[in-house]
Amino acid sequence: MHMSKVRVAVAGASGYAGGEVLRLLLGHPGVEIGALTAASNAGERLGALQPHLVPLADRVLEPTTADVLAGHDVVFLGLPHGQSGALAAELTERDADVVVVDCGADFRLEDDAAWERFYGSAHAGTWPYGLPELPGNREALRGTRRVAVPGCYPTVSSLALAPAVAAGIVVPDVVVVAASGTSGAGKAAKTHLLGSEVMGNTSAYGVGGVHRHTPEITQNLGRLAAGGPESVKVSFTPLLVPMSRGILATCSAPLAGDVTAEEAYDVYVKAYADEPFVHVLPPGQWPQTQAVLGSNAVHLQVTVDAAAGRLVAVGAVDNLAKGTAGAAVQCMNLALGLDETTGLTTVGLAP
Amino acid sequence: MHMSKVRVAVAGASGYAGGEVLRLLLGHPGVEIGALTAASNAGERLGALQPHLVPLADRVLEPTTADVLAGHDVVFLGLPHGQSGALAAELTERDADVVVVDCGADFRLEDDAAWERFYGSAHAGTWPYGLPELPGNREALRGTRRVAVPGCYPTVSSLALAPAVAAGIVVPDVVVVAASGTSGAGKAAKTHLLGSEVMGNTSAYGVGGVHRHTPEITQNLGRLAAGGPESVKVSFTPLLVPMSRGILATCSAPLAGDVTAEEAYDVYVKAYADEPFVHVLPPGQWPQTQAVLGSNAVHLQVTVDAAAGRLVAVGAVDNLAKGTAGAAVQCMNLALGLDETTGLTTVGLAP
Amino acid sequence: MHMSKVRVAVAGASGYAGGEVLRLLLGHPGVEIGALTAASNAGERLGALQPHLVPLADRVLEPTTADVLAGHDVVFLGLPHGQSGALAAELTERDADVVVVDCGADFRLEDDAAWERFYGSAHAGTWPYGLPELPGNREALRGTRRVAVPGCYPTVSSLALAPAVAAGIVVPDVVVVAASGTSGAGKAAKTHLLGSEVMGNTSAYGVGGVHRHTPEITQNLGRLAAGGPESVKVSFTPLLVPMSRGILATCSAPLAGDVTAEEAYDVYVKAYADEPFVHVLPPGQWPQTQAVLGSNAVHLQVTVDAAAGRLVAVGAVDNLAKGTAGAAVQCMNLALGLDETTGLTTVGLAP
Amino acid sequence: MHMSKVRVAVAGASGYAGGEVLRLLLGHPGVEIGALTAASNAGERLGALQPHLVPLADRVLEPTTADVLAGHDVVFLGLPHGQSGALAAELTERDADVVVVDCGADFRLEDDAAWERFYGSAHAGTWPYGLPELPGNREALRGTRRVAVPGCYPTVSSLALAPAVAAGIVVPDVVVVAASGTSGAGKAAKTHLLGSEVMGNTSAYGVGGVHRHTPEITQNLGRLAAGGPESVKVSFTPLLVPMSRGILATCSAPLAGDVTAEEAYDVYVKAYADEPFVHVLPPGQWPQTQAVLGSNAVHLQVTVDAAAGRLVAVGAVDNLAKGTAGAAVQCMNLALGLDETTGLTTVGLAP
Repeated sequence: MHMSKVRVAVAGASGYAGGEVLRLLLGHPGVEIGALTAASNAGERLGALQPHLVPLADRVLEPTTADVLAGHDVVFLGLPHGQSGALAAELTERDADVVVVDCGADFRLEDDAAWERFYGSAHAGTWPYGLPELPGNREALRGTRRVAVPGCYPTVSSLALAPAVAAGIVVPDVVVVAASGTSGAGKAAKTHLLGSEVMGNTSAYGVGGVHRHTPEITQNLGRLAAGGPESVKVSFTPLLVPMSRGILATCSAPLAGDVTAEEAYDVYVKAYADEPFVHVLPPGQWPQTQAVLGSNAVHLQVTVDAAAGRLVAVGAVDNLAKGTAGAAVQCMNLALGLDETTGLTTVGLAP
Repeated sequence: MHMSKVRVAVAGASGYAGGEVLRLLLGHPGVEIGALTAASNAGERLGALQPHLVPLADRVLEPTTADVLAGHDVVFLGLPHGQSGALAAELTERDADVVVVDCGADFRLEDDAAWERFYGSAHAGTWPYGLPELPGNREALRGTRRVAVPGCYPTVSSLALAPAVAAGIVVPDVVVVAASGTSGAGKAAKTHLLGSEVMGNTSAYGVGGVHRHTPEITQNLGRLAAGGPESVKVSFTPLLVPMSRGILATCSAPLAGDVTAEEAYDVYVKAYADEPFVHVLPPGQWPQTQAVLGSNAVHLQVTVDAAAGRLVAVGAVDNLAKGTAGAAVQCMNLALGLDETTGLTTVGLAP
Repeated sequence: MHMSKVRVAVAGASGYAGGEVLRLLLGHPGVEIGALTAASNAGERLGALQPHLVPLADRVLEPTTADVLAGHDVVFLGLPHGQSGALAAELTERDADVVVVDCGADFRLEDDAAWERFYGSAHAGTWPYGLPELPGNREALRGTRRVAVPGCYPTVSSLALAPAVAAGIVVPDVVVVAASGTSGAGKAAKTHLLGSEVMGNTSAYGVGGVHRHTPEITQNLGRLAAGGPESVKVSFTPLLVPMSRGILATCSAPLAGDVTAEEAYDVYVKAYADEPFVHVLPPGQWPQTQAVLGSNAVHLQVTVDAAAGRLVAVGAVDNLAKGTAGAAVQCMNLALGLDETTGLTTVGLAP
Repeated sequence: MHMSKVRVAVAGASGYAGGEVLRLLLGHPGVEIGALTAASNAGERLGALQPHLVPLADRVLEPTTADVLAGHDVVFLGLPHGQSGALAAELTERDADVVVVDCGADFRLEDDAAWERFYGSAHAGTWPYGLPELPGNREALRGTRRVAVPGCYPTVSSLALAPAVAAGIVVPDVVVVAASGTSGAGKAAKTHLLGSEVMGNTSAYGVGGVHRHTPEITQNLGRLAAGGPESVKVSFTPLLVPMSRGILATCSAPLAGDVTAEEAYDVYVKAYADEPFVHVLPPGQWPQTQAVLGSNAVHLQVTVDAAAGRLVAVGAVDNLAKGTAGAAVQCMNLALGLDETTGLTTVGLAP
C-alpha cells in the first residue's frame, strides 16, 4: 500500500448492499472511492438514490461494465444473484491482481449440485468464504484476491451454532428460525415489500427447506460436524418482520449428552474469545437486533433447555453490515493485509 | 335469553385484553355492557384510556371489586396473572350461575406442580379450556359457567401442531418459535417495551423453556399424542417483533415416517374442515399476521421438509383477538348457547 | 329494497381502496357482493391478493369492463385517477339507475381549470361530493345515483377547519400539515414506498401547493368562507410517516378577532353535535390515528394559541376507511335511503 | 491538549442523550471516556442498559454526584430538565476550567420570564447556545467552558427558517409542525410511549403554543428578524410518529414580497455554503429523516407556494445526534479548539 490509498469501485451502488459498502468505505481510512456503477439507475446522481451518503451526493452512477470497473485495486460487487460470475471473469482477466469481493451468492457454495438445485443455473465456482470467524476461513482470506461474502442468514446462523456443533455437544440436526428486516429482500420494487404490506405484519417465507441460504448453512456446519456434511440436517425458516435492518436467528439442536447451560456457555465464550466482532453476552442477557444496527458485531447467547433436551442459541446481526457489507470490508482488510477491524465498529446505533 | 340482552361486566377494562373484549362486545348483538372496572385507573373516563371505544368514551371506570362486578350475567376478567382466583371465588359464591371468563392464566393448567414451577404461587384450579377447536374442548364449553381463556402463544402453536400430533405423522418433540407483537406484553409501562426500544428491534426472551406458556402447549399436545403427556417435548422460544398485534408461530417436529407435503396438508384440511375460524390457506400461501388483525381467524399452512426430515407448520393469529378476547367471546357464546360465531369475524383489517 | 339485498360490484378489488370497500361490505347487512374486478390481477384468486378477506378468498377477479360490472345496483370504482370517467359513462348509459360511487378524484372538483392544472387531463365532470358532514352535502347525496368520494386529506382537513371558517372566527388563510400512512399512496410497487424506505422515516412530498388535494380543500372551505372561494388560501403539506393507515392533520389559521379556546371549542361541538361519525374529543385530549383505525370516525380537537394569534385544530381519520371506503359506504347508504351508519362503526382497532 | 486525550465524563449515561454522547465519543479520536453516572441505574453494568455500546459493556454506572464527576476535562450532562443547574454550579466551583456541556434545557433561554412560564421553576441562567450555524453563535462557543445544547425541535426549526427570516423575505409569523421519533420523549417508562401505543399511530401533543421548545424557537428567530424579538410569532405543533429517531420539521411563513422559489433557494444555499453539517438538497429533492440517522447532518429544502403566499421550508435531523448529542460533541470540539467536525459525520444510516 505504501501509504497510498487503495482505490475501490462499487458495482450496484444504488442498491442496499452497495450503499452499505459505501457507507462503511466513507469511514475507512485506507480507501479512495472510485467508480460507482448501477444498472437501470446509471446516469443518475447518487444523492437522489442514497441521500444518506452526503459526501458522495454529486457522484453520477456509471453503467456496470468491466470497462468502468477496471483499473481499481478492489471491486465490490453488489449484484443480483447469477450476475457476478461473468463480470468477475472479465475483471480478473484484465487484472489478475484485482481484489473482487462478491456480495452475491455466486461463489459461496462448494457443491455444484446444491447450487443448481437452489439457484437453477450453472455454478460459477467457489471462492474463499468470507466468514473469518469459522475455523480455517481466516487463513484462506488473508491475501486472497477473491472473496465470496456469506449470506446474511448463514452468517448469524452458522456463528450461533458453530461452537456447539464443533464441540460435539449437540446432534447436528438443527432448527433455525430467523427473523429478518426487509432490506434483506433488496431494493427492487415488489408489492409484497411495500411499507403498507410489511408494517404491522410478520410472515414466513421459503418454508420447508427451499430458501437458498439452506445449503450454505449446511455447508458451514458440515465442515465442523464430527460426522461430516452428511451428518448435518438443517431446518431453516426465514421470517419477514417490520423493520428495515437486522436479523435475529433462533437456533436449536438436540443435546448430544448431558450438557449444562454453564458448560454450553463456556464452549461459546472460548470459541469466540479472540474474535473482535463476536460478542457473547453475559449470561441471562439475550441478543436484540437494535444493538447491532450499523455495526459489524454479532451478539450471541446460548442456553440449555433440559426439559426439551435441546441447546438453544440466539444470534443478532445487522443483515446489511456484518451480514453483507461489513463482512465485505472485513474481508477486504484481510485480503489487503490491513488490520481486520479497520473502518468497522462494534458500536451499534440505538435506539 | 328470551330476547333480552345478556348483561356483561369487564374487569380490567383499561388494559389491552379488557379493551379488546369491549371492542368485540360493542359489535355483539346479544349483550349489554355493564360495569367496567380497573385498578389504578378507577375513577377515570374510559375515553381517556381507550380512545378507540367511542361509544363508551364517557363511561367512568369503577374499582375492581366483587361488589361492583356482581349482578351481571357474564363477567370477563382481564387481570394480571394470579389475581383472578380470589375474585372468581367471591363472584361465584354470590351467584353460582354467573359466567366467569378468565382471560388470565390462573385456571388454564391441570398440573399443580407445573403451575407452581412456572408461576410461583398456589394453583387456583382448572376450568374448561377455551380452545374449542381442540378435540373434546367444545363439548366442555357448551353451557359452562367457567372458562379459562388460553394463552395467545398456546392458541396458535397448539392449533398449528395439533393435527400432525393427533394423526401421529410427527414425533411430538416439537420446536416452536413464535414472533409476537408488543401488546402481548400488556399495557404496564416498562422501559424495554417503550416504542423507542421495540421499533427497529427484534429480540428473543424467555429462552430455554422458561416462558409460562410452555407447559400450556405441552398440556394441549399431551392430550393428543398417542404416547400421552410424557411423550411430548416442547422447545418454545418467543420473539418480540416491532408491531402492536399479531403472532406468527413457526412450528416443526420430526416426521414419524414417510409423509409427503400433500398428505400432511390433507391432514390439516380434514382436521379443521368444520371449524369456522381456522383457515388452512391454499397450498403455497403462507400465513401473515396482518391478514388476521382484529379478526378471530387462525391462518395455517403446513409442509414437509424432506431433507431435514421435519414437518413445518406456520400459524397466525391476532394475539388480542383470537389469542385472547375473541376466544373469550367465542367461549361466552358457547356458554350461553348462542351461535359460536356471534359478534366475531374472520375478516381482518389490512393493510 | 323490500328485504332483498342490494347487489354490489367493486372495480379495483385488488387495491387498497377496493379491499377496504369489500371489508366494510362484508359487515353490511344490506348488500350482496357481486362482481370483483381488477386490471393486471384479473384471473387471480382474491385470497392471494387480499388474504384478510377470508369469506371472499375463493373469488376470482374478472377484468374491469362495463360488461362485467353491468347488472349491479351499485358499482364502486377504486381505479387510478383519470380512469373512472369513461367507465362511469358506459355504466350509466347501460343503466341510468345504477349507483356509481367513485373512490377516485375524477368527479370531485367543480373547477375545470383547477382539474386540468393539477391532473393534467380533461375534466370528466362534477358529481355530488361525498362528505355529508359539510353543510349542504348530505341533502345532495340522499337518493343520488353518483357519488364523488372525497380525497383522504381533504376529508380530515376540511372537517378540522370547516367550523372555524364557517363561523368566521378565523381568516381563511390556512396552513395544513397532514401526516399520512403509506396506504394512501396505493398498492402499486414503487421503490420509495418499500418497507425498507418508509420504516424509520418521515418525509414531506408535494410541498409548495402542488399536491392534488390542495384545490379540493380550497373548494370545500371556499363554500363556507364569508368572502367566498377567492378569499381562501391553503398551504398544504403532506407527510409520509411509518404506518400503514391513518392521517393526522394539523390545521391552523389566523384568528379573525378575539376568540378564546373555550369559544372555539364550543363552535366545534355545536357544528358536529348531530354528526354520527365526528367525535370532538373532550377538552385537552388530542386526536391520534390509532384510535380511528378501521372505523368511520373522525376525531377532532381545537384550541387557540393566543401568543401566535392562531386557531389550531387537529383531526384524525383512517385514510382508507372514513378517508375513502367508509365514506363510500356511508354515501351508498344515503343514496339508497338506508340508515347512514349501516355497516359502519365509530369503534377503532387499537392498539 | 498536547497529544494527550481529553478526559470526559457523562452524567445520565443510561438515558438516550447520554447513550448517544457515548456512541459518538467512542468514535472520537481525541477523548478518553471516564466516569459514567446515572440516577436509579447506578450500580448496573452499562451493557445491560445500552447493549449497543459494546466497548463499554463492562463499565459500571456510578451515582451522579459532583464527587464522581470532578477531575474530568469535560462533563456532559444528560439530566432531566431542572437538574443541571445545581450540579453545574458544584462542578465549576471545584474547577473553573472544566467544560460543562448541558444537554438539558436549563441554560438555553435568555428570558427569565419565559423560562418560568414554560418550566415553572427558577431560571438557572444563560450559557452560550450550542447552535454554531446561527449567526454569532460559533464565535461565542470557541473556547467556552459552558455550552447549552439546543433543543431538538429548535435546532431543525431554527435552521429551516433562519435564512428566510434573516434575509427578510418572510414575515416572521411562522408555523412549524414537526414530526418526531419517540426517543425525543426519553427513556422513562410511560404508558403513552409504549411500543403498542406508538406503532401504527401518529398524534399531536403540546398543541397551542404550550410546548417548551416554543420560546427557544422564538428566541432564535428573534435575533435574526429585522423587527427584533417582538416581531416574531411562532405557532409550533409537535407530532409523535412511529419511529425511534429523527425529526422532520415543516416550516412556513408569509412571503414579505415577491420572492420566487429560485430566489428563496439561493438565500438558503448562500446562508449555509460554509457549514459542514447543513446540506441544502438539490432543488426538487425533499428531506427525509432516514437519510440523517446517526449523523450530524441537517438536510434542508425550501420552496415558495405562490398561491398561498408562503415560503415553505422542510428540515430533517436526527433528534439524538445533531438534535442533541452530536451538537454537544460539535460544541465540545469548538470549546477545546479541535476541528469542529472531529468524531462527527454527515453520513447517515439508511435504510
